[in-house]
Amino acid sequence: MSETLRPLILVCNDDGFYSPGIQKLTEVAQRFGEVRVIAPDRQQSAVGHSITISQPLRANKVKMPSGLDATAVNGTPADCIKLAHDKLMDRKPDLVLSGINHGSNAGINIIYSGTVSAATEATILGYPAIAVSCSDFDEDADLSGCADAASRVIQFVLKNGLPKGVTLNVNAPAGPLKDLVWTKQADSRYVEEYDGRVDPFNRPYYWMTGKFELLENGSDLDVSVIDEGKASVTPIQYDLTAHGFFHEIKKNVL
Amino acid sequence: MSETLRPLILVCNDDGFYSPGIQKLTEVAQRFGEVRVIAPDRQQSAVGHSITISQPLRANKVKMPSGLDATAVNGTPADCIKLAHDKLMDRKPDLVLSGINHGSNAGINIIYSGTVSAATEATILGYPAIAVSCSDFDEDADLSGCADAASRVIQFVLKNGLPKGVTLNVNAPAGPLKDLVWTKQADSRYVEEYDGRVDPFNRPYYWMTGKFELLENGSDLDVSVIDEGKASVTPIQYDLTAHGFFHEIKKNVL
Repeated sequence: MSETLRPLILVCNDDGFYSPGIQKLTEVAQRFGEVRVIAPDRQQSAVGHSITISQPLRANKVKMPSGLDATAVNGTPADCIKLAHDKLMDRKPDLVLSGINHGSNAGINIIYSGTVSAATEATILGYPAIAVSCSDFDEDADLSGCADAASRVIQFVLKNGLPKGVTLNVNAPAGPLKDLVWTKQADSRYVEEYDGRVDPFNRPYYWMTGKFELLENGSDLDVSVIDEGKASVTPIQYDLTAHGFFHEIKKNVL
Repeated sequence: MSETLRPLILVCNDDGFYSPGIQKLTEVAQRFGEVRVIAPDRQQSAVGHSITISQPLRANKVKMPSGLDATAVNGTPADCIKLAHDKLMDRKPDLVLSGINHGSNAGINIIYSGTVSAATEATILGYPAIAVSCSDFDEDADLSGCADAASRVIQFVLKNGLPKGVTLNVNAPAGPLKDLVWTKQADSRYVEEYDGRVDPFNRPYYWMTGKFELLENGSDLDVSVIDEGKASVTPIQYDLTAHGFFHEIKKNVL
């Protein structure tokens, strides 16, 4: 295949262009195609699918720690994908990757995840997209298993494509890859979330803490699979309609 | 029914505690129970399901323009619900309402909506929850139809409850209520999103603009129903698993 026909891969994340995770994912992407990195200029964790509507965005050329040229955007992960799509790409990407996030995006974390939102935004805009996260928060964690999982999922998507509206959400533990399985989003939530304190002026304030609580069990759930040391691939969608309830209730007059 | 047995209703939004929409929704809520308003201290549109993890939150007693006591939180809509649940409520609410948002939260807007995220967060935490939005952005728009739609949906939920994991997303045009129908989230997206400009120092910057584009047609879609002047109720869920594709693909080795 000639150089110009190699797939064009756009890489984004939510930890910023300088994070170890995005260096690693960029290395993986380079095995499969030509790579453009367009990512937030700073850490943007837990921004969910936030977008910037009241401030202008800027896109600056930067060097990644790996030496690769990248574009840093003063916005959220979803902003990066939207701006890349509309203004910053010389041609349309064949694949969009987001990550590797430092921290799990399995279970309810999907809802809060900036990493996943970048991939979802790409899906909305019509691109095949994959989010990749390491369940270990440590920035020095061994990302080799995440990279190998990402590599296999990228091959799958470049070969088979993805159905319209479907994004793949990959999570893997730190360390070498053990196994890679298809999963569903585990029902889960956070409990005891706030540490209430009093400031020097006797006014209360609250730090978010919180314990992750798994609300269901099953061998095909993302959280359970990762707890077993395996890597997980969850197909997710941006159609939030509760179709089962809709079909049950639609004849009822309100 | 004695005062103490009336349902407790928590009201939130994403436009801030002083917006006309939350005054109106609070009035509606007061017909059905005892009301607590816990809402952002400022406008938080398009924050999606963003949460605050690196800064402490504060909750201050304020007076709403309507004269009602409320609590203003320096965070996102999802933060308000989490903090209310964990720290700020004297007893657990029987129902959580979010809105009335000034602007549509139908179709792809659901993904970016802070209003919807407050209701979704309440669902995650186990409460029946309803988001309400007016498709007119004008802060002076006639919200009577939205209020009547909200009233009927509140009655439905107080009588029937909601299945676990399901949130109701209500949208109505400005003006009197014509009809109220069950709908699905319409596939849609924004196109031509950025207005690129050059600053006085010759550096480019980008304002988000964008045209809403409907990608499917159908008489049971939220966007279509609202375009016909009716009010729409869409059951949505926080389980993002693409179940159809999962069941099709799960036997395939990656």
